[in-house]
Amino acid sequence: MEFTVQQIADVVGGLVEGDATRRVASLAKIDEAQAGALAFLSNPKYEPFLYNSQATAVMVSPDLVLRQPVAATLVRVADPYSAFTKLLEFYAQATRMGKRGVEEPAYLAATATVGPGHYRGAFSYIGENCRLGPNVLVFPHAYIGDRVTIGEGSVIHAGAKIYADTVIGRFCVIKAGAVVGTDGFGFAPQADGSYQPIPQIGHVVLEDYVSIGANAAVDCATMGTTRVGEGTKIDNLVQIGHNVEIGRHTVIAGQTGISGSAKIGSFCIIGGQVGMVGHITVADRTTVAAQSGVQKAVRTEGQVLQGHPAFNLRDSQRARAVYRNLPEILHRVERLEKAANAPEKP
Amino acid sequence: MEFTVQQIADVVGGLVEGDATRRVASLAKIDEAQAGALAFLSNPKYEPFLYNSQATAVMVSPDLVLRQPVAATLVRVADPYSAFTKLLEFYAQATRMGKRGVEEPAYLAATATVGPGHYRGAFSYIGENCRLGPNVLVFPHAYIGDRVTIGEGSVIHAGAKIYADTVIGRFCVIKAGAVVGTDGFGFAPQADGSYQPIPQIGHVVLEDYVSIGANAAVDCATMGTTRVGEGTKIDNLVQIGHNVEIGRHTVIAGQTGISGSAKIGSFCIIGGQVGMVGHITVADRTTVAAQSGVQKAVRTEGQVLQGHPAFNLRDSQRARAVYRNLPEILHRVERLEKAANAPEKP
Amino acid sequence: MEFTVQQIADVVGGLVEGDATRRVASLAKIDEAQAGALAFLSNPKYEPFLYNSQATAVMVSPDLVLRQPVAATLVRVADPYSAFTKLLEFYAQATRMGKRGVEEPAYLAATATVGPGHYRGAFSYIGENCRLGPNVLVFPHAYIGDRVTIGEGSVIHAGAKIYADTVIGRFCVIKAGAVVGTDGFGFAPQADGSYQPIPQIGHVVLEDYVSIGANAAVDCATMGTTRVGEGTKIDNLVQIGHNVEIGRHTVIAGQTGISGSAKIGSFCIIGGQVGMVGHITVADRTTVAAQSGVQKAVRTEGQVLQGHPAFNLRDSQRARAVYRNLPEILHRVERLEKAANAPEKP
Repeated sequence: MEFTVQQIADVVGGLVEGDATRRVASLAKIDEAQAGALAFLSNPKYEPFLYNSQATAVMVSPDLVLRQPVAATLVRVADPYSAFTKLLEFYAQATRMGKRGVEEPAYLAATATVGPGHYRGAFSYIGENCRLGPNVLVFPHAYIGDRVTIGEGSVIHAGAKIYADTVIGRFCVIKAGAVVGTDGFGFAPQADGSYQPIPQIGHVVLEDYVSIGANAAVDCATMGTTRVGEGTKIDNLVQIGHNVEIGRHTVIAGQTGISGSAKIGSFCIIGGQVGMVGHITVADRTTVAAQSGVQKAVRTEGQVLQGHPAFNLRDSQRARAVYRNLPEILHRVERLEKAANAPEKP
Repeated sequence: MEFTVQQIADVVGGLVEGDATRRVASLAKIDEAQAGALAFLSNPKYEPFLYNSQATAVMVSPDLVLRQPVAATLVRVADPYSAFTKLLEFYAQATRMGKRGVEEPAYLAATATVGPGHYRGAFSYIGENCRLGPNVLVFPHAYIGDRVTIGEGSVIHAGAKIYADTVIGRFCVIKAGAVVGTDGFGFAPQADGSYQPIPQIGHVVLEDYVSIGANAAVDCATMGTTRVGEGTKIDNLVQIGHNVEIGRHTVIAGQTGISGSAKIGSFCIIGGQVGMVGHITVADRTTVAAQSGVQKAVRTEGQVLQGHPAFNLRDSQRARAVYRNLPEILHRVERLEKAANAPEKP
Repeated sequence: MEFTVQQIADVVGGLVEGDATRRVASLAKIDEAQAGALAFLSNPKYEPFLYNSQATAVMVSPDLVLRQPVAATLVRVADPYSAFTKLLEFYAQATRMGKRGVEEPAYLAATATVGPGHYRGAFSYIGENCRLGPNVLVFPHAYIGDRVTIGEGSVIHAGAKIYADTVIGRFCVIKAGAVVGTDGFGFAPQADGSYQPIPQIGHVVLEDYVSIGANAAVDCATMGTTRVGEGTKIDNLVQIGHNVEIGRHTVIAGQTGISGSAKIGSFCIIGGQVGMVGHITVADRTTVAAQSGVQKAVRTEGQVLQGHPAFNLRDSQRARAVYRNLPEILHRVERLEKAANAPEKP
């Protein structure tokens, strides 16, 4: 899609300075923009890029005083960053998220209901007694098992699998290949050393504005509920065990694993490749550095943890610094021992 | 589904004490049960919950002597825990695993055969010369490549991908999104630094009662067989490399990776996010703590390992304890050095 | 498929020594071959296996002088290893990769074009304005979003998901369940502690001969391009963040995670379960040991790194060796302290 700079200016309520008939087809950062792109300048630190930018057009503040000539057409707009964000959303909507209607063949069980404004991609599957709110997008190959409810405006991406009885709130995003609500890893050890599967009959609840990453897995509860709180964002390839409860607006980065029955607080930030043992409670506003292993309850809010096992960041960094020098420290101990054992000088 | 307490009692062979006409619709733990739920009391430690429980009905032992009045209807039954487990299985079967028949469109190659009692969900795919035993469930979007055999009662969940020539035993469970039998990661380095793929023509054998987790990946052998032994349970997002062999009744927790040609014994317990290098042998009954890295063969049975690289748990825990205090130990070494270098007191 | 030894000899240009009418049905290593298999002998170290092999036929060098009688039929061929590789490729092609044509139902948008020699499996999806070159194989349940281009000879395996605007070069392999081009994990923190998704409008470019593993995830750029260079091989369950750039002929093993905007050089070897923080640059020919955490830029080419945080292999191995003995070192420090504080002997 191409637009003239004038069209862009009209959308964001800006004033054109330069050739308003030039055409832009993409959005880019000012330090990366090529010909045909629209960029923005908000942070004064980036002003030098303005004078060398290849961008066809740049949105700038009304107050900006040019110190050199600029090749790009300018669009003067009160808040260039917000204006750019608005265009980003418009662009994403127009190119990727604007799907509506049904592509056949798509499977919709007779007892399921879908709200207005929906998209059901080819080969999507919606099981018995599902209830989908308005403007829900179900991409191709998405699987939605029986009795699932999905709130307004949520998006189920290609090949995501939502198992029976899952409850998904409003404006959630389930990315491609994510699996929500499969059986947890629960087995009863038998006398002969084998394992008997424990039937898993619970479900998963994702509250509003939750995001689940590509190829992530969220297990259903053995009984009861695995719950992800409002606004919590879970990245790709994360594993959430059965009966886990996560609070609101917590962020969990890629490839992290939360073991069964752990309770993670709200406003936490969990780095990538972190592991958490089961049945622990982690207080609100806890931060865990990437690749750490949390093995005990975290009771005090607002801590920053690191390491295997994780302890507070400052102590962890000091221990890491000494660790690197262990061979030298050993050498110093050996020298001390030699001196101590040396025969007294006469 | 709703049942009267009397119906439940008839199923488990119990005696009702209280209002047998009350209706239950779910199963729950006694300390979490709400109205409408059926719970059980087996461990005497939980008896206090009985007197405050919101449960509509509770299964208890015939011997239990009540010490306070109980609001719930009681079902007296010889082994309340076993009775509850039976109901769990019945419930799981009725609500999720009771699918039978074919939902169209489903793809079945002309040369494939499926046993009686099967389920083939919409958009499921079964390739040429496949042989599926009785009561095999193939959920929507499952892909079963050519010449795959699957034994009685196995379940292939939504979007699982089983590649050509895989052999799956009886009563296996392949969870949603799991990939079994794709090409291993085998490349021959070339003189110019590039890599040539080595054709992978082997396959995967899963023996009876194997479980493969959601979005896990089990690679086929370069030649020969990648084998997972009877009863072994593999959790979500686990990676099993080409030509790996795993024994019987071993448990591997989420996000662990086993590199190519490793041989893992029987009755092992491997924690989550563990890494194992290729071409090593790990003895029977080995336990590996979460997030460990196993870099060498484990020849003695029954060891417990931890750390990077993994060594025995007791030594690892002692090293970890000292690690935390490294800065203080360094300080003590410095003090000793200062003292050693100090001029002798007169 | 069965062939006579004579037919094999004709394909590889060899001379039969023994019964040319015997039939082989599989390929195997000489130390693992069973009856019905064809093996090869290239490395003289393996010659002893020749005399005990169960193989029906073995390809050997014209120069080989037998020191014992051999049960197998021999095929004398100039380069037995190359001949065997040729047969491996032929076998893989014949059994798994020889699919052509369309299995219905398959979805092809009206505006999409596919080249000659293609395979489109049942339930495959190809969106609007896609451009697929000749001999592209699209397996069942593969999802290819709008405006994707795929070069000659590339293979999109079962259930792989390629999001809108992705560019895939020639002879790439996208394995089952891989997700290429979904939104990156980008959120703007709000004043109330919640997160606003940042629209992701960039895309992914995979250059020629790239391989992406099963259930791996490659995020699209926020703006601009996430790029994987020519010949780079990425294993199963790897996570590649938004705006990452990876050079040519780099190998990344299973379950590794590369955070957003990292720039990895060419000819690197990254082990399994490695984590890399975002926005760093890693020089060409860097090797990173499995389970390491790379937290800083790597500016010098050709280094080998290990540990959390990663530093050079030799220092890391020395620190690891001392780490194991930390309890003993602490004990030695305590002894030194005791000695230092002891009253002087009279």
